[in-house]
Amino acid sequence: MSGGSIVRRTVTRVSVGGTQCVEDAIAVESPLEIRIDGRAVSVTLRTPGHDGLLAMGFLAGEGLIRRRQDVTAVAERPAECEDQPDIVDLRLAPGVALDWSRLERHFAATAACGLCGRAHLESLRIGLRKLPPGPVIDPAAIGVLPDRLRPAQATFAETGGLHGAVWCDGSLAPQALFEDVGRHNAVDKVAGDLLDRGRYPAGAGVLWVSGRAGAEIVIKAARAGIPVLAAVGAPSSLAVSLAESAGLTLIGFLRNGRFNVYCCEERLKSARPPIVP
Amino acid sequence: MSGGSIVRRTVTRVSVGGTQCVEDAIAVESPLEIRIDGRAVSVTLRTPGHDGLLAMGFLAGEGLIRRRQDVTAVAERPAECEDQPDIVDLRLAPGVALDWSRLERHFAATAACGLCGRAHLESLRIGLRKLPPGPVIDPAAIGVLPDRLRPAQATFAETGGLHGAVWCDGSLAPQALFEDVGRHNAVDKVAGDLLDRGRYPAGAGVLWVSGRAGAEIVIKAARAGIPVLAAVGAPSSLAVSLAESAGLTLIGFLRNGRFNVYCCEERLKSARPPIVP
Repeated sequence: MSGGSIVRRTVTRVSVGGTQCVEDAIAVESPLEIRIDGRAVSVTLRTPGHDGLLAMGFLAGEGLIRRRQDVTAVAERPAECEDQPDIVDLRLAPGVALDWSRLERHFAATAACGLCGRAHLESLRIGLRKLPPGPVIDPAAIGVLPDRLRPAQATFAETGGLHGAVWCDGSLAPQALFEDVGRHNAVDKVAGDLLDRGRYPAGAGVLWVSGRAGAEIVIKAARAGIPVLAAVGAPSSLAVSLAESAGLTLIGFLRNGRFNVYCCEERLKSARPPIVP
Repeated sequence: MSGGSIVRRTVTRVSVGGTQCVEDAIAVESPLEIRIDGRAVSVTLRTPGHDGLLAMGFLAGEGLIRRRQDVTAVAERPAECEDQPDIVDLRLAPGVALDWSRLERHFAATAACGLCGRAHLESLRIGLRKLPPGPVIDPAAIGVLPDRLRPAQATFAETGGLHGAVWCDGSLAPQALFEDVGRHNAVDKVAGDLLDRGRYPAGAGVLWVSGRAGAEIVIKAARAGIPVLAAVGAPSSLAVSLAESAGLTLIGFLRNGRFNVYCCEERLKSARPPIVP
């Protein structure tokens, strides 16, 4: 869990020229529990490293501490097992007053209810049912997907400030396209649209997202029963791990006709018949 | 508050060729309160539009509803005043069981404590002290800032999957550079580093961020006393509004020697002496 900011992994790189296995570097995303005097106040999904600075900056940004002297000790403890977060524990100077009822209410929400922080891996995986195998999709159709989608992204083109999320059906025709300043909101709108059409869970098709693929987006796609998630940007390590658990095909760096497949590549099979010699 | 997904605003565009006022389109970010049967369960910062779908997709993604028939009515209500969120209220079918204690604990945390959802504008602005005027920065130095920073972003270059945040001091020398899968985490690490050096609040310099500038980043920069926020990507409407309230100079689209200034441009003054005829 703890350790460096990069993990290396063999991924399948797909282009018009064919398919090859390459080693890829993936940014690490893993949970950190922030404690004050031994009591948990927040859980965040972060890239390991500088956890003490992260915790102090987080508390300062919330107005809870004001200067370095408010913190008398910083202890970093790696996770004891894979499904537990790393821990950083700050000891506060005598006289630094905190509203504990407010902090604990926040922690109860973020760590336990799964609605916002949702960072304990155990609770992330609970409720994620494994997607059934199939259906099979032609990788060549994935490669040209961005060209089919770009004209429809009206507001993004004008402001450059919105994330897009699109659900394409089994024939990869775009069926639900939404934009939002928050990527998770755009994906929620897609899920709401599927629900509204009686297509939730979807059971087929591809969820395309304009940015990166983090853990949260993988969870939303898997819950919506969409078997393939394709992102323009990079996935995180936790996104790959959750996609594997959920049996979801995770595609990253989908641009210029090329993409990487991070897990469950068995859904991608060329529609071209094998050449008989 | 409610309305379209774009607002238009006159911004200052700066390039080596000079400065001009242009009209820019900015993606709208504003709060939405999601209610179930009249009771608030979440507040999210989103781009207005399709709020009913957003609410249904959010609840489905959390496993609270499973099909369209679980929702019998969707009512959308615009905000009554500027500092209140828009509201979407879902009526659930009889027999749909919800854990109200869990939902209300979550709502109390996100709406009231300011630590995660933090979407009520009133509470966003509380605690944001207005930054004092100055210091003055040469716009030409801002234009070349990305070239000074790029070599230092090691992990991003390798994975493409990390956000970067850098605090540059008053002479625009990079002093604190951090990367993270979460942009807010990268900014928290910068703030923690400032705290650790006894430089919190900073009172000078520029906070550079690799992606877009949303409301959350503006708040963290203002709380850290950094007078200028410069983003590679676009700002949101709420980011501009909060930056104005805080007296923070907000720069977007900083790339290729050019950038846009969205507010408080009086801090940017050319170091070149005026040409005397």
